[in-house]
Amino acid sequence: MKTRDRILQASLSLFNEEGETNVSTVDIANQVDISPGNLYYHFKGKDALISALYESFEEEMRIVLTAPVERPLKPEDNWLYFYIVFEEIFDFRFFYRNLTDLLTRYPALNVRFQDLLARKQATSASMIKSLSDKGVLDIRKDEVPQLAERLTMLLTYWLNFEAVRHPEASGPDIIHGGVYQILSLVAPYFAGGREPFMDVIASLYDDQKADAAKRRRR
Amino acid sequence: MKTRDRILQASLSLFNEEGETNVSTVDIANQVDISPGNLYYHFKGKDALISALYESFEEEMRIVLTAPVERPLKPEDNWLYFYIVFEEIFDFRFFYRNLTDLLTRYPALNVRFQDLLARKQATSASMIKSLSDKGVLDIRKDEVPQLAERLTMLLTYWLNFEAVRHPEASGPDIIHGGVYQILSLVAPYFAGGREPFMDVIASLYDDQKADAAKRRRR
Repeated sequence: MKTRDRILQASLSLFNEEGETNVSTVDIANQVDISPGNLYYHFKGKDALISALYESFEEEMRIVLTAPVERPLKPEDNWLYFYIVFEEIFDFRFFYRNLTDLLTRYPALNVRFQDLLARKQATSASMIKSLSDKGVLDIRKDEVPQLAERLTMLLTYWLNFEAVRHPEASGPDIIHGGVYQILSLVAPYFAGGREPFMDVIASLYDDQKADAAKRRRR
Repeated sequence: MKTRDRILQASLSLFNEEGETNVSTVDIANQVDISPGNLYYHFKGKDALISALYESFEEEMRIVLTAPVERPLKPEDNWLYFYIVFEEIFDFRFFYRNLTDLLTRYPALNVRFQDLLARKQATSASMIKSLSDKGVLDIRKDEVPQLAERLTMLLTYWLNFEAVRHPEASGPDIIHGGVYQILSLVAPYFAGGREPFMDVIASLYDDQKADAAKRRRR
């Protein structure tokens, strides 16, 4: 692995573990086992590191969020899809942990993060619309953006909410709880009433087991 | 007003405006127009200030959150009630702005904040149950804690979500949007279907106008 990539990986991991404000460029250089001067040769300070990490995150999210807009998912794939979105967010969770403060200190990220929220909401709206067209959901047109907004908020703050309530919870448990919350938000709009929600949850548990097995094989 | 209270008021206002990390005790002393030594005589550093402010917040929230648990509200008063909760949170918004980071730096607040979240959730659950007993909501027993959890999350992160999306929005607009989101969350469970939701929103606007007029008279 190139030094530049090792620096980025070490930064991401330290920011996620310790919180971005608690990590200095010297900490990162120590972690990668290079001199601070060598690190400075690659990145001129934390601003440059954060900007590069945000670019990776943005690119990952762009790919993930564009997929179901271009080609609607099968109904049963929607829940699995939200796992993928949550996993991406979890990988870059330091951005979300103190979002308001981070955006104040790195104003260049403001417009880009707002754009990301808009993408999340557009993707959610497009998934809801597709499920409604297929007759899976019974939802009025003016309710689609409202529900999409709630899904966006959940995607954005669920990790923080869980960090406060269950500081010891594991990543997979937090992500699983988030997908459960997504389902609960959508459940009242199921065309067949809220009862089938329980079936969906059951299948979700199966999916999760399969997915966890897949992850272990990676 | 006593010096101690003036210090607290200036701290709260500076923390809310500038962010807690960007305000020093010297800034606060300057704002109150006293010497740093005089401030130190009242509060031995930022920890003591934050602890005192949290105590005020906790006391206000305790009163607000206990009321509807002890005596159920009339159905039409529930929406107005959420305005009051949001207004309290808005008054102490710096606690919410970078919650995860703040709780890491002031670990003494952790248990107390978790307790507050539990209170918010208990109050929400008790309101939902009371509306369900009255036949206003049609909701299954196992859905009550789920919905209460979503209301708690909304109460906790709505201000942050709006700060990112609409940094220029006014306090009253943010609070109004939050209550609208609360209504949207509860709407699917209305016993009379989701249609009456629109009537409730209309009455909510009237309530808000009356409330805003009341605020101006204060």
